[in-house]
Amino acid sequence: MIKVSVMYPNTPGARFDHEYYRDKHMPLVKARLGDGCKFYTVDKGLAGGAPGTPATYVGMCPIYADSVEAFQKGFGPHAKEIMGDISNYTDLSPVIQISEVVVGQ
Amino acid sequence: MIKVSVMYPNTPGARFDHEYYRDKHMPLVKARLGDGCKFYTVDKGLAGGAPGTPATYVGMCPIYADSVEAFQKGFGPHAKEIMGDISNYTDLSPVIQISEVVVGQ
Repeated sequence: MIKVSVMYPNTPGARFDHEYYRDKHMPLVKARLGDGCKFYTVDKGLAGGAPGTPATYVGMCPIYADSVEAFQKGFGPHAKEIMGDISNYTDLSPVIQISEVVVGQ
Repeated sequence: MIKVSVMYPNTPGARFDHEYYRDKHMPLVKARLGDGCKFYTVDKGLAGGAPGTPATYVGMCPIYADSVEAFQKGFGPHAKEIMGDISNYTDLSPVIQISEVVVGQ
């Protein structure tokens, strides 16, 4: 299992519509990716690790897939539509990383 | 539900023992935190989002808890032991963030 982590830096003044992200964008991603997305979760940044510090990311979304190939196969044909929806909820550019899930739930 | 994300920046030349982290450190954290850790996962960074780019984090571990208070109650009494074990697998300082789990698995 692999995880594609999409992380939006918590930048002062930036726009991020958590409701749109939860209710519109991520369901769109799941619908389009099909088997390329086994499941996903959505996190809303609350705080940093030290008292009084801000969260590093305003929003984080790990997308789980059987393999990098499965994810890419699902994402590729719909990349334009999915990427085109980003401006509807944010003006931020996400940090993206692919990880191996060493310990799953 | 909240998530405490512990993320180790992928710094060239840094040390990170994935086996120790998976087999020793995180089981220690789970054992000590008790109800302060409902479950956790472990990720090993493979690559960045763009082709040929490195992962932002060499390792990531989300720890799930019912609340920030539940996590802190479990962590506090064992902070010294848990933090003292970090040097056994890495010389990196993790980025830590607390998030609300808006969409769970």
